[in-house]
Amino acid sequence: MKSFSETPLNPLLRLVHELSKLPGLGEKTATRLSYFILRQDLSYAQALSQAILRAKEQTRLCERCFSYTESHQCGICRSPQRDSGLICVLEHPSDVDSIERTRQFLGLYHILHGTLSPLKGVGPEHLKITALMQRLTDPHQPPVREIIFATNPSVEGEATALYLTKLIQPLKIALSKLAHGIPVGGVLEYTDGQTLSRAFSNRMEIH
Amino acid sequence: MKSFSETPLNPLLRLVHELSKLPGLGEKTATRLSYFILRQDLSYAQALSQAILRAKEQTRLCERCFSYTESHQCGICRSPQRDSGLICVLEHPSDVDSIERTRQFLGLYHILHGTLSPLKGVGPEHLKITALMQRLTDPHQPPVREIIFATNPSVEGEATALYLTKLIQPLKIALSKLAHGIPVGGVLEYTDGQTLSRAFSNRMEIH
Repeated sequence: MKSFSETPLNPLLRLVHELSKLPGLGEKTATRLSYFILRQDLSYAQALSQAILRAKEQTRLCERCFSYTESHQCGICRSPQRDSGLICVLEHPSDVDSIERTRQFLGLYHILHGTLSPLKGVGPEHLKITALMQRLTDPHQPPVREIIFATNPSVEGEATALYLTKLIQPLKIALSKLAHGIPVGGVLEYTDGQTLSRAFSNRMEIH
Repeated sequence: MKSFSETPLNPLLRLVHELSKLPGLGEKTATRLSYFILRQDLSYAQALSQAILRAKEQTRLCERCFSYTESHQCGICRSPQRDSGLICVLEHPSDVDSIERTRQFLGLYHILHGTLSPLKGVGPEHLKITALMQRLTDPHQPPVREIIFATNPSVEGEATALYLTKLIQPLKIALSKLAHGIPVGGVLEYTDGQTLSRAFSNRMEIH
């Protein structure tokens, strides 16, 4: 019996192999997507192929906030309309989109590119922490009034915020973190215990 | 307020745009995958980009069965170990993998590349039906004993099998189609009504 890999489907199988490295795509989905790509005109394969290479080649980290950009500094850092006295600290570049979508925050960002995780061997030197401290202490940079930690409410995210709090406290900069509680539109019955207990301990006085 | 598209994220947004054309990938998943690609080494973007282009450029249709191949004929059609007297008729090239995985079928395939669908404007001339008839009647091709229809059990799939049945019947070739019934490992309670009624009407006598 001939095995599947001996049949001359190599470029197709290679595509399945490369696609299934993407997170959340199993071999079955990767196969479905590969067949879809084969069914389309060559122009789609060319456009997708080029978009992947260009995104990776032309995108770099903003030298100020470390989000993705094509220039030295990102559009947010370069914008004169943003409040440079306010910095929101995030784990990942993708978090910027989530916050920008709220249209609530008009300050600048600082992307750590991860969280402290002793178990995974991620120490302060692997994150953009030195750069953050330089940003806060450099007399040539605009003064910072407040830092808002928007790391994820995970053990690592909270530990990272706590580590940074201790590091920044001597600088007399106001520190805050995003509120935790019941999601808007959420239902008490389906809210997990941890969120509910946070909602209790952070309960707001009614005036 | 600056709109998102004015920020200089164009190569990234273009990648999101191209990825979200893939079936089943919404903008959210496409964004997640794009950020994943940016986080990897350049070598992954290069490998994926090249795999997409090569798969599309180097893959063509087998001139005999119309499945995907790199050569004039696919590995299955060229194999002397396959029974050329038996042809399994399929809708899509991807169906070949599903059947090959069973290791049950040792004949050849014929891929229609779709089903008849008057509503979508798909007539016999849009499918590989003329090629199938030539394959069955050409004296230079090996004689065919039996044709197994393995089109999907949808209205279009069944109609296509019926159309082909009427076309092929005068050739005195045995025709069959895959059995329908309760899936192996399935539970009566969760089997849909149509499948259950097929299982009744196709019930097998116990000897």
